[in-house]
Amino acid sequence: MSTHDEGKTVAELSALIGGQVVGDGSVRVKRVASIEGADEESMAFVEDAKLLEKAQASQAACVIVPASGRVEGKCVIEAARPKLAFALIAEVLHPPKRRAPSIHATAHVAASAELGATVFVGANVQIGERARVGDGTQILAGAFVGDDVEINRDCVIHPNVVLYDNVTLGDRVILHAGVIIGADGFGYVRAEDGYHKFPQLGTVVIEDDVEIGAHTCVDRGALGETRIGRGTKIDNLVQVGHNVSIGERVVIASQTGISGSTVIEDDAVIGGQVGMGDHARVQKGAVVGSKAGILPGKIVRAGTVMWGVPVRPLDEYKILNAHFGRLPQMKEALDELRRQVAELNARLAEKS
Amino acid sequence: MSTHDEGKTVAELSALIGGQVVGDGSVRVKRVASIEGADEESMAFVEDAKLLEKAQASQAACVIVPASGRVEGKCVIEAARPKLAFALIAEVLHPPKRRAPSIHATAHVAASAELGATVFVGANVQIGERARVGDGTQILAGAFVGDDVEINRDCVIHPNVVLYDNVTLGDRVILHAGVIIGADGFGYVRAEDGYHKFPQLGTVVIEDDVEIGAHTCVDRGALGETRIGRGTKIDNLVQVGHNVSIGERVVIASQTGISGSTVIEDDAVIGGQVGMGDHARVQKGAVVGSKAGILPGKIVRAGTVMWGVPVRPLDEYKILNAHFGRLPQMKEALDELRRQVAELNARLAEKS
Amino acid sequence: MSTHDEGKTVAELSALIGGQVVGDGSVRVKRVASIEGADEESMAFVEDAKLLEKAQASQAACVIVPASGRVEGKCVIEAARPKLAFALIAEVLHPPKRRAPSIHATAHVAASAELGATVFVGANVQIGERARVGDGTQILAGAFVGDDVEINRDCVIHPNVVLYDNVTLGDRVILHAGVIIGADGFGYVRAEDGYHKFPQLGTVVIEDDVEIGAHTCVDRGALGETRIGRGTKIDNLVQVGHNVSIGERVVIASQTGISGSTVIEDDAVIGGQVGMGDHARVQKGAVVGSKAGILPGKIVRAGTVMWGVPVRPLDEYKILNAHFGRLPQMKEALDELRRQVAELNARLAEKS
Repeated sequence: MSTHDEGKTVAELSALIGGQVVGDGSVRVKRVASIEGADEESMAFVEDAKLLEKAQASQAACVIVPASGRVEGKCVIEAARPKLAFALIAEVLHPPKRRAPSIHATAHVAASAELGATVFVGANVQIGERARVGDGTQILAGAFVGDDVEINRDCVIHPNVVLYDNVTLGDRVILHAGVIIGADGFGYVRAEDGYHKFPQLGTVVIEDDVEIGAHTCVDRGALGETRIGRGTKIDNLVQVGHNVSIGERVVIASQTGISGSTVIEDDAVIGGQVGMGDHARVQKGAVVGSKAGILPGKIVRAGTVMWGVPVRPLDEYKILNAHFGRLPQMKEALDELRRQVAELNARLAEKS
Repeated sequence: MSTHDEGKTVAELSALIGGQVVGDGSVRVKRVASIEGADEESMAFVEDAKLLEKAQASQAACVIVPASGRVEGKCVIEAARPKLAFALIAEVLHPPKRRAPSIHATAHVAASAELGATVFVGANVQIGERARVGDGTQILAGAFVGDDVEINRDCVIHPNVVLYDNVTLGDRVILHAGVIIGADGFGYVRAEDGYHKFPQLGTVVIEDDVEIGAHTCVDRGALGETRIGRGTKIDNLVQVGHNVSIGERVVIASQTGISGSTVIEDDAVIGGQVGMGDHARVQKGAVVGSKAGILPGKIVRAGTVMWGVPVRPLDEYKILNAHFGRLPQMKEALDELRRQVAELNARLAEKS
Repeated sequence: MSTHDEGKTVAELSALIGGQVVGDGSVRVKRVASIEGADEESMAFVEDAKLLEKAQASQAACVIVPASGRVEGKCVIEAARPKLAFALIAEVLHPPKRRAPSIHATAHVAASAELGATVFVGANVQIGERARVGDGTQILAGAFVGDDVEINRDCVIHPNVVLYDNVTLGDRVILHAGVIIGADGFGYVRAEDGYHKFPQLGTVVIEDDVEIGAHTCVDRGALGETRIGRGTKIDNLVQVGHNVSIGERVVIASQTGISGSTVIEDDAVIGGQVGMGDHARVQKGAVVGSKAGILPGKIVRAGTVMWGVPVRPLDEYKILNAHFGRLPQMKEALDELRRQVAELNARLAEKS
């Protein structure tokens, strides 16, 4: 976790993120830490001016604070967005592990595969026929790279990832352990004697800067492609069905499942354990809450915030849910009214 | 993806699926493709007569169409079920990859294991004591086959599959990457000092023609067996608990979880993200919609279509859900009635 | 499944669990079995006095029964908790497989790693720099142990498990196949150009006697640690997010997902497919039913039983759900009342 060097000065780091140093900019910082866990060589942050007391109490060498967030007697960097500044500084102080270019003696690389000069290939990796791996890419132990796979530059393929034949990864793609790209989609045609496999002959394209969490599965297209757009981030144990198209800068939390041919447009945010039927569409920038269910063919409009099964606008859902919680009282009120109306009827009958 | 040969004639392919050629049956077709992606060497299909215009516009050499689905100036095959015909033709034009029989130098095969003559064993595969592998089976890189495992003929075991000791696979079973068969079921007995493992000593039997998707887990029986019936198809990331019994030709979509000792009978269709409690039963041919929840011990009757948590008949659920969506209006109507009844009461009190 | 020896006498086994033998205590028992599957060398059990007829019909050499559960002409052990007694006896008759200490020729163990004398390391295992593995631990084929990992005594690491750098396991931890510990948590900060990774530099600590099911993922802390307490049992395909803290003797069923920084206290019981938002807290001994959804920041009180999305007390939920099912009748009653009130209004108008 340390940077194994002398770190950077506060002034250097502040310049990097366009911040304003208040205090001694020549202090050296070696790592980032939480505000509670920081020591005198750490950079910490507080996102909210309400937490400035915590900043003061922290052992951190320097704390990134919101603009005008002065802290008596403490070196701070003022930044418009402290958490973002902290993330950018962490990128500098804790660059991802870069293994020296090498191909492990136990790796099995097909003769027809083309590997860039600065590739790292770990133990027991298998790389198939005609596969291409770009410079700076690291493929860790036990990963399987099928035939005709294309992996571009500076990717990190964690242990035991499986890339079926013929899939493509862009630059700087990170696949965490156990990710599976390009398994057959789930398509069958029922005949009298049982199910016949619908052909699953397509491919998968993962664009630049995508990160995919552990054990997530992205199935290959049936006849076309499954695509995940540039800069999209997907959590662990997510299922992406065949022919799904996911746009750029989409975020998808853990255990969500996306059925075949569904489209998620740019900048959408999808919670965990969401289920999407096939041929649905989540338009640009829509937000879908955790555990929501989207029916097949449903369109979630751009910019909306949706929740529930089946999905409804969040505000509507909250009202409905409140009514749901008061059903017993509603039933009581209804029964009381029935009693009163029966009495009114009786009194009127009496009178006439 | 190409068949690396001269393909088949339209007449040959039509005969295979009992179709009717309209046009030049001697045209050669090398692959299947979508109606939009087809070229002059491709066979495409349209399922619905409404799409015949698309068929006409397609570059495909030949299009499979519904009966009487003539397309002006286009070679077609008329078939009762075009999608099924297309799947069957795809099986012929795109047979699954068959690797030449061989055992990779880095595979670790126990001396007591028995392998058929035409088996393929990939790099870093481990095959345990007394395991048996039938002719034509392909075990890909990194797969683990435990002691006393029995794998029958023509199976495909994709990379990094794990078969715990003592499980059995029938013929033509396909296990996608990362499938785990036979891990311990989740059974404990609470004592004062914490949980003790209930014995998980049983086994798993997977019958012929089963296909199981990436990262699906099928736990071994506690004392008996977990069984998956002939021709059943299971999607990715599904959990099958200990002692579950799944019948023949069952379809189970992604991320569904089935608790211990539950029974799913033949021809049932189970959506994605369904949860089933233990000791439940889904009878023959029932359909359970995505995200449904089945309580422990619940019986879903044969041939019914169920949805929701807990499951109800789909038609009932739709009505209930519509009422749910109108709860605010119902509340308003109730309040208006209260007002009117109060007024009636007041007027009557006045009169008497 | 057999113990490969002469087994134990009923008297020995009974003494072990503090039972009372009725019948011939010198009978030898070699294995445990279900009451239906037992043979004359098996020990079976019935938990409930209602099942004593089954006990009588069983072929078992001996049956563990509840106190005073005499069975005519059958050797039995009376025990206060038969299922627990059965589990404890199974531990003796079926001890976990213990592989002879050895390091497979194809394992890659870093020179700086420290392995106990009685460690088993299977084929193609990779063990990283400065990793430490305690005596009696078994690491099966294809597992990946990162740099600076600490594994203590008598653990079982099943095939294809991945331990990222710097995580710690206590004693007697069991990780089933495909478990991934220490992958990056899912944290990003949005900037104008897309998402930047929030640093994921923390670690994971798994305490003694934890068992984790196949393909479950436990992410590393962002800046601190993710922790799973002593004696906790987690099922397959569960997602544990960064900085989650799980107490002792917690049980979590399959496919549940726990978002970042959530706390689950000791002795909680969590069903399958539960979703927990971030920064939630499940207090000591609470029970959360399957498929429940816990909102971010929500506190589930100690000892309560909760269900639904969002969670409510189970009793309340059952009542609400019953009302939900009668919404059509409620609507009808409301419409009938409207009719009657309209009539009353009309009659009153007539009169005045």
